[in-house]
Amino acid sequence: MDNSRFVYERSPFYYETDKMSVVHHSNYIRWFEETRIAFMRHVGFPYDKMESLGVMLPVLSAQCSYKNSVRFGDTVLIEAVVSQFNGFKMSLQYRITDKETGEVRSLGSTSHCFTDMEMKPLRIKKNYPEIYEVFAALGEQTLF
Amino acid sequence: MDNSRFVYERSPFYYETDKMSVVHHSNYIRWFEETRIAFMRHVGFPYDKMESLGVMLPVLSAQCSYKNSVRFGDTVLIEAVVSQFNGFKMSLQYRITDKETGEVRSLGSTSHCFTDMEMKPLRIKKNYPEIYEVFAALGEQTLF
Amino acid sequence: MDNSRFVYERSPFYYETDKMSVVHHSNYIRWFEETRIAFMRHVGFPYDKMESLGVMLPVLSAQCSYKNSVRFGDTVLIEAVVSQFNGFKMSLQYRITDKETGEVRSLGSTSHCFTDMEMKPLRIKKNYPEIYEVFAALGEQTLF
Amino acid sequence: MDNSRFVYERSPFYYETDKMSVVHHSNYIRWFEETRIAFMRHVGFPYDKMESLGVMLPVLSAQCSYKNSVRFGDTVLIEAVVSQFNGFKMSLQYRITDKETGEVRSLGSTSHCFTDMEMKPLRIKKNYPEIYEVFAALGEQTLF
Repeated sequence: MDNSRFVYERSPFYYETDKMSVVHHSNYIRWFEETRIAFMRHVGFPYDKMESLGVMLPVLSAQCSYKNSVRFGDTVLIEAVVSQFNGFKMSLQYRITDKETGEVRSLGSTSHCFTDMEMKPLRIKKNYPEIYEVFAALGEQTLF
Repeated sequence: MDNSRFVYERSPFYYETDKMSVVHHSNYIRWFEETRIAFMRHVGFPYDKMESLGVMLPVLSAQCSYKNSVRFGDTVLIEAVVSQFNGFKMSLQYRITDKETGEVRSLGSTSHCFTDMEMKPLRIKKNYPEIYEVFAALGEQTLF
Repeated sequence: MDNSRFVYERSPFYYETDKMSVVHHSNYIRWFEETRIAFMRHVGFPYDKMESLGVMLPVLSAQCSYKNSVRFGDTVLIEAVVSQFNGFKMSLQYRITDKETGEVRSLGSTSHCFTDMEMKPLRIKKNYPEIYEVFAALGEQTLF
Repeated sequence: MDNSRFVYERSPFYYETDKMSVVHHSNYIRWFEETRIAFMRHVGFPYDKMESLGVMLPVLSAQCSYKNSVRFGDTVLIEAVVSQFNGFKMSLQYRITDKETGEVRSLGSTSHCFTDMEMKPLRIKKNYPEIYEVFAALGEQTLF
């Protein structure tokens, strides 16, 4: 099984729209988080399990470009890949497409570092090899 | 100074609107929280100070009736009173009116209990008399 | 098939938690909306189809009682029933239970009226009999 | 009066925190919008007035880097400048600092285009010179 490319399906909630009648742009950043967390579950390391081991993955940066609006009633597919991983930092890329038409709605990325519960950076290769192995096995991919 | 009646002013943020072009109804519940927290600061017991003492005030119930929509560009006044307080539970009432016209937009209420950081109920009269005194001094008021 | 009782499954998103480490209480109001909209799709009248016919269903009131916290990592089931319907107004009741333990997390209700796109009340029995029939067929149920 | 640099003050709402006990990263994107809209009001062209003339300013891209967490109880200052403007597209930069310590919390930027209500791009120099003049007068500034 190829775990390195993950697709998360999502239909906008009504409360995610704004008075332009489209999904508010801030929600894409939330969808990226949903996708990232579903991705981690998919590859066998759910985020809540990681937190219960004392490891967090806060966001260092987030970027999103908006190509076309998403509207209530649409369904989108959100692809995610790990674009960079070194046991210390991790970056992901995301592409949102319309499920029906395949049209690209958005491209985005986030970067993260592994930290302890006090948000002190961690090198997981040494301290959490079981986490390290999961992400190292994915390889580095790009979507754009 | 009469502390028992508090007014919080708020203009809707764009991201709080939905595709009906009005503020999404869930945000009123958030505005009640903003008002409650501003109220506590106003009466001299900021919520972050209370949390730092190990006391939380989770919500047991929330209720809101929607009389008229609030739109982007409006400014509203949110009045709050403590409608019930016994050192164990506390209820508040809220009234949202349009600042310009005075028209009522919404009436609501929330009930709470005082707990420790593990969400175990607390009797604050005994353990936190300094918190108890602040709220007891307000008296019980109603808005509707 | 008995359409009158509907169950919607949901796992909290990370961004729905707050610093008490539980799902923020305002999100339950949003979950009720998600459930209501999924319910409408289930019974054959998706909300976006209704809006495209010029009918909206704004919220007149919302109420929620919080029995037990929902945490990140949990999965909940949200049951919904139509508790009142007369072609003019509609009320729903909701019950949130933990999927694993069956423990009740929350009980809630919302009331609505049918309106046109200018939020003027509508009697749908006369003007939109195809919508009326769908909801009338469900009967009135209660969850608590 | 120098209008080109604008500062917006904000204290996090409780519901903006997450279980890491910090403001959720998606909210910074919302704060940038709040700041942008307050900035437009400040320079004399409120966003609701612009919309009432049939002009919208959707987001083409957003970027945010997170330097230090913002916590409930903090107050931050959000500076904004127009970093690019040509009557067709506009970009802004934002810097979030702690009000008390001056420490940088976040740097970000957004880019926009002017559109009509159907989201068709507009050249405002010709069609809305009164909007054009306001933004052209600000000059292009950078924060980082």
